[in-house]
Amino acid sequence: MPLLVIGNKNYSSWSLRPWLLLRHFGVAFDELRLNLDTPEFHAEIGRWSPTRTVPVLHDDGLVVPDSLAICEYANERWLDGRGWPADLRARAKARAAAAEMHSGFRALRTQMPMNCRRQPDAYRGDENAQADIDRIQQLWRELRAEFAADGDFLCGGFGIVDAMFAPVVMRFLGYGVALDDNAHRYVEAITALPAVREWRAAAAAEPEYLPDTDKLVQA
Amino acid sequence: MPLLVIGNKNYSSWSLRPWLLLRHFGVAFDELRLNLDTPEFHAEIGRWSPTRTVPVLHDDGLVVPDSLAICEYANERWLDGRGWPADLRARAKARAAAAEMHSGFRALRTQMPMNCRRQPDAYRGDENAQADIDRIQQLWRELRAEFAADGDFLCGGFGIVDAMFAPVVMRFLGYGVALDDNAHRYVEAITALPAVREWRAAAAAEPEYLPDTDKLVQA
Repeated sequence: MPLLVIGNKNYSSWSLRPWLLLRHFGVAFDELRLNLDTPEFHAEIGRWSPTRTVPVLHDDGLVVPDSLAICEYANERWLDGRGWPADLRARAKARAAAAEMHSGFRALRTQMPMNCRRQPDAYRGDENAQADIDRIQQLWRELRAEFAADGDFLCGGFGIVDAMFAPVVMRFLGYGVALDDNAHRYVEAITALPAVREWRAAAAAEPEYLPDTDKLVQA
Repeated sequence: MPLLVIGNKNYSSWSLRPWLLLRHFGVAFDELRLNLDTPEFHAEIGRWSPTRTVPVLHDDGLVVPDSLAICEYANERWLDGRGWPADLRARAKARAAAAEMHSGFRALRTQMPMNCRRQPDAYRGDENAQADIDRIQQLWRELRAEFAADGDFLCGGFGIVDAMFAPVVMRFLGYGVALDDNAHRYVEAITALPAVREWRAAAAAEPEYLPDTDKLVQA
């Protein structure tokens, strides 16, 4: 049975991605949860992850760190390619969006770290975070308009690109980000997924604990 | 003919990646070079790239931004999968390393921006940059030891993972980074590639020009 090592469900945005992909597609796996940014984490992580980051997947002796790389591996190993759109050009668009999320939106990520339990208040990010929010909504509009005939998600049916953006959905909810209609509908589609509901319930049940989000080790 | 829009060859580390992959594998393409961080760049980039970043590939109406996404698309479109190792588990390791480069090593990237013409001097990065350098050399040691029977590159023959790390090779050379023997041999393998020699010669021939590297728009 593969083992997915993750951080706290409440805080570990990068862990959510491959967990959601595997759970949504019914791949059986064990999970090991480590509390981010604790002495225990730093003592334990080296034995699991060569990059000292979560998530990391162990599968029959193979060790795969990085959320996107785990999703690509899972796609080939268990999903028979269903993680990406079947069409070459659609797949390129999905991969470009996933990659933009993987390396970008740094202002949003640092100013609005994922906290699944968070309730919106007066806090807002600066103009750089807003620029990230605007770009994400533009991207979501373009993709959902193009693939509307195929499903409610970014490129039709749920796939890796949605797993990559699911943590942003949690951020938008927790920080009360003002959204356009398209983004509202996408947030509804993501939050209605049974696997997302399961993750959020588990996050809500975790003990109160606030890591120093500047020091989180995720990739 | 596909068109690859890139930044200056001397400075645009992210542009080097897909350019090198395409050139190494003999894919015919046109290129358009825009000088990073100039008024002309900001005036022009919006018409080419939805993310306003370089590199961006145009292929028969399809627009693919992001260096890694372009490499994945090129791998499927023109390389018949030769961009990654043929073995599933080896491919997972190559993708994990490429992804680690894609989202990480931020201290190295910001403190030692690629400048192909640069000659080493007394400048060194701080301890965070050194931690990135140490991790990269550790990764290179592990990969090249595992795949030594298959070739001189990170996972045997030259592929996407090497294209992703090629800009780091340029940085190590330009900043005179102290390297272990394995890294020295890898730097030699990369710099001996005809496509790398072609890129460096073109970079050396570019007019003198120093962008504000804090404002570079690459992905």
